[in-house]
Amino acid sequence: MTQTQLDLAVIPGDGIGPEVTAEALKVLHKALEGTGLELKETRYSLGAEHWLATGETLSEETLADIRGRDAILFGAIGAAPGDARIPSGILEREVLLKLRFTLDHCVNLRPSKLYAGVGSPLANPGEIDFVVVREGTEGPYTGNGGALRVGTPHEIATEVSVNTAHGVERVVRDAFRRAQGRRRKVTLVHKHNVLVYAGHLWKRTVEAVAAEFPEVEHDYLHVDAATIFLVTDPSRFDVIVTDNLFGDILTDLAGAVTGGIGLAASGNINLDGTAPSMFEPVHGSAPDIAGQQKADPTAAILSAALLLEHIGQPEAAARIQAAVTADVESRTPGEARTTAAVGDAIAARL
Amino acid sequence: MTQTQLDLAVIPGDGIGPEVTAEALKVLHKALEGTGLELKETRYSLGAEHWLATGETLSEETLADIRGRDAILFGAIGAAPGDARIPSGILEREVLLKLRFTLDHCVNLRPSKLYAGVGSPLANPGEIDFVVVREGTEGPYTGNGGALRVGTPHEIATEVSVNTAHGVERVVRDAFRRAQGRRRKVTLVHKHNVLVYAGHLWKRTVEAVAAEFPEVEHDYLHVDAATIFLVTDPSRFDVIVTDNLFGDILTDLAGAVTGGIGLAASGNINLDGTAPSMFEPVHGSAPDIAGQQKADPTAAILSAALLLEHIGQPEAAARIQAAVTADVESRTPGEARTTAAVGDAIAARL
Ligand SMILES: CC(C)[C@H](C(=O)O)[C@@H](O)C(=O)O
Ligand SMILES: CC(C)[C@H](C(=O)O)[C@@H](O)C(=O)O
Repeated sequence: MTQTQLDLAVIPGDGIGPEVTAEALKVLHKALEGTGLELKETRYSLGAEHWLATGETLSEETLADIRGRDAILFGAIGAAPGDARIPSGILEREVLLKLRFTLDHCVNLRPSKLYAGVGSPLANPGEIDFVVVREGTEGPYTGNGGALRVGTPHEIATEVSVNTAHGVERVVRDAFRRAQGRRRKVTLVHKHNVLVYAGHLWKRTVEAVAAEFPEVEHDYLHVDAATIFLVTDPSRFDVIVTDNLFGDILTDLAGAVTGGIGLAASGNINLDGTAPSMFEPVHGSAPDIAGQQKADPTAAILSAALLLEHIGQPEAAARIQAAVTADVESRTPGEARTTAAVGDAIAARL
Repeated sequence: MTQTQLDLAVIPGDGIGPEVTAEALKVLHKALEGTGLELKETRYSLGAEHWLATGETLSEETLADIRGRDAILFGAIGAAPGDARIPSGILEREVLLKLRFTLDHCVNLRPSKLYAGVGSPLANPGEIDFVVVREGTEGPYTGNGGALRVGTPHEIATEVSVNTAHGVERVVRDAFRRAQGRRRKVTLVHKHNVLVYAGHLWKRTVEAVAAEFPEVEHDYLHVDAATIFLVTDPSRFDVIVTDNLFGDILTDLAGAVTGGIGLAASGNINLDGTAPSMFEPVHGSAPDIAGQQKADPTAAILSAALLLEHIGQPEAAARIQAAVTADVESRTPGEARTTAAVGDAIAARL
């Protein structure tokens, strides 16, 4: 049976989230024309406004509803910094991270590409085209910390990074698979000389999985050294596989060297199909420019392309990717198009 | 009583360590002329060769002996990658980190400065002159991890980041003190939206200490955002205060954007004088170029300047700093001086 409907959960979120999501949907609709796939959208109002109105972050009912969809398009979430009405980090943890963890988004896929004509802050960026396979459901993100004697001179606070063979192996295998369809090189980034227990699990897993992919080469970098190479020789990377926190850091840096996180897309992938995957720009909600049509929707649009690829529409995904490439390469430095104008231009090229 | 002797522990280490340390000592001797301070050197053979010969990393006797000195000059430690005779990371942990932890080197001080004429990988680096106050004895570096069912599909490995009010407060206060003598701005870097327990301890401590320094402004960045600013707007930083692991990552990146870690110095500071502080280049042992007189000794020499500043010889420290600045600014791209020639040139300028 061929699928005739894409049952999409849409979570526009806060700040610039709704603006960039609108453009991603515009492009998605256009890209699906002629595929026989009809887009059905269900919108979920989650984020700062919703929290202020209801005191609710993400209810079990909403989560169950989202879980029944085919895929999720996510904008951005997060209150304005210093908004004292919203406990700091609560939206990130109880909406975004809760979705990633509950829906078992074990691979946080983050491609980095320097488009022709896009200004990099690097003097000689060279060709940059790699993907980071960031583990998404373990590491220091598990919330397994605690504190004692809070507020006293004897306070002690811990954070526990949790890493399992199951969790590491599936993302490492995914990284090797992706490398096979690319330039066939996997770089593990960790800090195994200090984080011995987690680091050795990652290293051993890479060695074991590498044996299944004899045509893919692999190497290793400590996370500190990896940041050096990201600014001195980013061309060396093809597929980076790394833990949740290192991946968070490396992909923001990678976004910066490829001309800004306005272009950085991501997919939170559920590998075994037990729950919908979620596609979101790497950037945040940028409350300072919200509602002004100043945000660049390209990252959100590229996230929609990742979504199409994931649900088995590689041609439609490639059309979006090509339209984005053409649009980005035709941009002139300093030009100021509205968010909608960028979406229109990309949709028009499809 | 004026001190007449500087009782120095010298740990040249592995790879390029001995070469760069020799130049640091050459410059140190010259800088001390006329100060009335006589340099007494005690060398400790620690590192890969020592381990291979004795099976010993750092004995209690050696540690006790080092502890009795006034200060430590450290080269670099670490076996060649892939040297199967030496368990990976053992030298880093049982020599370098053991020294930092046992001698209570709570502040890992890492200045970053872009010298005129030094090529940065950034197209428009602007003025870069900041210091990172990296916590040195806590965080994910405490070795408080463990593993269960190692080598099975049910393996679980944890790493525990330990943070205490005592440990955080002293480095935060040190950061504010240093900012007072600089451009009066402290930036806390953490990830408190995810690492809630540790992050909030750091945030609350910064707020509390900031009240003692009304003339110093302070702000906050998540570690991922901080890496973006390090490549897009490094001039914004004056003093960064951060935890052990984030500091490790940020200072390597900072070294890269200021033209390479061949120039990055550091001091591992014992703040209350209960044990000697230790000064070392940020770079590693670079076994691939060891013994070839190819290493740049500037970071080691600048570390010697930090040492002099720390032991109360600010004029001698400033002379080294000025000589290094003059030497670095007169370098021509692509020139190939030997390690000793760079040391000679800097010493000659004193
Ligand atoms: C908002 C935050 C929790 C999130 C993360 O740390 O994963 C963000 O930085 C990202 O990279 O998607
Ligand atoms: C060698 C390693 C243990 C060390 C660290 O991680 O602190 C190094 O990277 C540094 O920055 O001094």
